[in-house]
Amino acid sequence: MGYQYAKRMEKVKPSAIRELLKLGADPDVISFGGGYPDPTMFPIDKLRKVFDSVLLEEGQQALQYTTSEGHLGLRQKLVKRMEKIGVSCELENLFIINGGQQGLDLVAKMFIDRGDVIITEDPTFLGALVAFNPYEPEYAGVSMDEKGMNMDHLEQVLKANPAAKIIYTVPDFQNPTGVTMSLERRKRLVELANEYNVIIIEDSPYREIRFEGEDLPSIKSFDTEGRVIHLGSFSKILCPGMRLGWVVAEKELAEKLCLLKMAADTQSSTLNMHAVNRFMELYDLDEHIQQLKKMYKHKKDIMFKTMENKFPKSVQYTNPQGGLFTWLTLPKHIDTAALMKESVLPEAKVAYVPGSSFFPIQEEHNHCRINYSYMSKEKIIDGITKLGKILNKYC
Amino acid sequence: MGYQYAKRMEKVKPSAIRELLKLGADPDVISFGGGYPDPTMFPIDKLRKVFDSVLLEEGQQALQYTTSEGHLGLRQKLVKRMEKIGVSCELENLFIINGGQQGLDLVAKMFIDRGDVIITEDPTFLGALVAFNPYEPEYAGVSMDEKGMNMDHLEQVLKANPAAKIIYTVPDFQNPTGVTMSLERRKRLVELANEYNVIIIEDSPYREIRFEGEDLPSIKSFDTEGRVIHLGSFSKILCPGMRLGWVVAEKELAEKLCLLKMAADTQSSTLNMHAVNRFMELYDLDEHIQQLKKMYKHKKDIMFKTMENKFPKSVQYTNPQGGLFTWLTLPKHIDTAALMKESVLPEAKVAYVPGSSFFPIQEEHNHCRINYSYMSKEKIIDGITKLGKILNKYC
Repeated sequence: MGYQYAKRMEKVKPSAIRELLKLGADPDVISFGGGYPDPTMFPIDKLRKVFDSVLLEEGQQALQYTTSEGHLGLRQKLVKRMEKIGVSCELENLFIINGGQQGLDLVAKMFIDRGDVIITEDPTFLGALVAFNPYEPEYAGVSMDEKGMNMDHLEQVLKANPAAKIIYTVPDFQNPTGVTMSLERRKRLVELANEYNVIIIEDSPYREIRFEGEDLPSIKSFDTEGRVIHLGSFSKILCPGMRLGWVVAEKELAEKLCLLKMAADTQSSTLNMHAVNRFMELYDLDEHIQQLKKMYKHKKDIMFKTMENKFPKSVQYTNPQGGLFTWLTLPKHIDTAALMKESVLPEAKVAYVPGSSFFPIQEEHNHCRINYSYMSKEKIIDGITKLGKILNKYC
Repeated sequence: MGYQYAKRMEKVKPSAIRELLKLGADPDVISFGGGYPDPTMFPIDKLRKVFDSVLLEEGQQALQYTTSEGHLGLRQKLVKRMEKIGVSCELENLFIINGGQQGLDLVAKMFIDRGDVIITEDPTFLGALVAFNPYEPEYAGVSMDEKGMNMDHLEQVLKANPAAKIIYTVPDFQNPTGVTMSLERRKRLVELANEYNVIIIEDSPYREIRFEGEDLPSIKSFDTEGRVIHLGSFSKILCPGMRLGWVVAEKELAEKLCLLKMAADTQSSTLNMHAVNRFMELYDLDEHIQQLKKMYKHKKDIMFKTMENKFPKSVQYTNPQGGLFTWLTLPKHIDTAALMKESVLPEAKVAYVPGSSFFPIQEEHNHCRINYSYMSKEKIIDGITKLGKILNKYC
C-alpha cells in the first residue's frame, strides 16, 4: 500500500555509515570504517564484577524504572568530572542520555523548525546530519583548517544566515577530520554565538582520548549566556554497548531536553547507569583512559608509519593529537566511493568511510575517513599496505 | 536569555506521571501510581548468571556497537514468539527499540505532520500522548466500554476526521482502564482502518500478563494490508530497567522506522540485548511469566477484596483480566487530583494517578488509575484501606 508519511521523511534516507557498519560485521574485512573503540581494551573482568555486585546488592532498583534524568550518583560523578574541563555545573544542568547521538536528536527536536539553519563544520560528523535531518533544517558549512572552524568564515556564514539557530561542532579530534579547535577559536566561537544569538552544540565524545599535546578547555567553559549545550559520552572512554552519554546545559534547556528524552524513550537503561556508576566507584576511570590513550597513540603511530611508507606522496592526511580518526585527501580526480568498491574486493578487503557523506551541502569526493582504534596492529599494517597498493595505482 | 524554540515545544509540558514517578521514589509513600512491575519478581539470580556468561563468553561483542536493528539472535527469538500470537513475520519486519515508548516516538515521527489527527481510546495511555505531542497532532477520542473501543463511535470519528492518520490502541488490559478489546472489535478495527486508510498502532506491553480468561489474537494478526504496527516490550514480562522492546511492521515501515531509530540513538544497548537473548536461551521466559501472572492475580484479588470492603459503594472500578491497572470512577463531583493532595499527606501517604491526564481532549476529573503490581500485599491492604477512609469522607 502507499503510506502517507510525514513530510520530514523526505529527508530520511539510508546513510553510508549504516551500510558500512554492516560491512564491518564481516570479520574478514579490515575495517577502518566505523568509529569503533578497540574491543580488546574493554574492561571485561571489571565489568563482570560490577554487574555482579550491582545485581546482588541493588538488583531490585537497577532493574526497575527510574527518573528520566537518570541515576543520581552517576549524575553527581559527572558533575564533578565536568569541573575538570572547566565547566562548573549543578545536578539540574546534567542528565543521562543514550550516547551522544540521542543528544543530537533532542537538541534538534527542541530548536529546529523546517527551514531553520544549522551551521556545521565542513566536513562534519555524518551521524549529526542523520540526527538533524528529520527536523528539516537547511545547512550552512564553515571551512576548516588545522585549527578547526575558520572563524572569519563563520562570521560571514552567520551574517548570511539570519535563520541560523545552531552551530554544531566537534571541537576535539573532530569526526571526520581528527582536527582540534584552537583555544583562541573556542573563545571567538562563543563571542560570535553571543553576537548572533545562536545555540552551540559542543559534541565531545573524543576529548578525553588526547594522546599528544595539551588539553584545551571545553567551549562550554566559555559560555556566559547559557547557549552552549555540551554532549559527553561513555562510548569511547568505556564502551559503546551500554549506550550512555550525558547532556550539560542551562537549567531551562536541560529541563526541556529531559522532557523530550522522557517522551522519546522514558529513560536510559537503569541497569547500565547503575553499572557505570559502580564502575566509577570501584575502579579508576581515568587510569583506564590512560591505558586507552597509550594504545590508541601506539596504533596511530603504527598506522602513520605505514602510511608514510606505503601511500603515494600525493595522498595527504591530517595528524590528530587524539581521538579515533585521520582524514585523507586524495588527488582531486579520485572518487573514494568508487575506489572502495575495489578495496573491499577479496584481494584487499579493506573498508573505510568515503568522505562525500560528511559534507552537509557540497560533497567533495576525494576524501575518506580512516579509523585507527578498532583494528589490531597487525591488521592496521596489513590493511594500510593493501590500501597503499590500490592508491598507488590511481594517485 | 530568551531561547527561540521550535514551534513544537509549545506542546511539550511536564506531565503528571513525571511528577508521580518522583513521588514514587519516596519509599514511605504507598504508590499505586506508576506502572512499575513487582521488583521482588525480577529474576535477579538468573540475570547474574546471564550477565556473567555474556561478559565472559562474548564480552567484546556485547560491549561494542552493533546494527540499529539490534541483536540477531534476539530478533529471531522474537519472530518465533510473535507466531504464538498469530503474527507471522520475518526478521526484516522486526527490530529492537528502547521499550515500547520509543516505538510511539518513532511512529509519530514517521507519520505525523502538524495538524494530522491521531485517534485514541478515551481515556488513553498518558505516555503515548507525551510521545506524540512533539509532532503536533490533533487528537480525536473514541469512547470505551468493557469490550474496549466502541466501533460505531470509531466509525463516526473516522468519518468526521479525514486528516486521521493513526489509530492508537492498547488492546490488552489497557492503560489506564485495564479493559481488553473483544475479538469481534479487533477484527472490526482492522476493517475500519482499511476502509479509511489509516495506520493502527497496537501497543501491547501487557498482553502476556493475562491471569484470567482466554488469550485473544493480536490485532496485527488480522492485518492484511500492512497497516498495523505492533509494539512489544520486555518491561513487564522481564524488567523495565534494561529498556528493551520491539517493533513488528510491514517491511517498508520497519526499514524507515529503523532509520529513525538510528538517527535518534544509533541502537539499543548491545549488552542488554545480549543478556535478554542469553536469558531466553538459558531459562524459560514463559515459565517466568507464569509466576508473574500468579503473583499479579493474587495481588489484584487482594486489592479488589479490600476495595470491596473499604470503598464506598459509589466508587466503581473496572475488573481487568490481566495487566497492572484498574480504573476508578468516583462520583462526578470528586476531583481526584485535589483528593490526592490529601491522600499523600503523612496521615495516609497513598499515591495514584489522577485520571484527568489520560484524556486526550476533554478531561474528566472523577477518575484515577490504580496499579496493583508494584506494592507488597501488606501495603496494598494498608493503602487501599487508607484510601477508602478518605473516599468515604467525600463520596
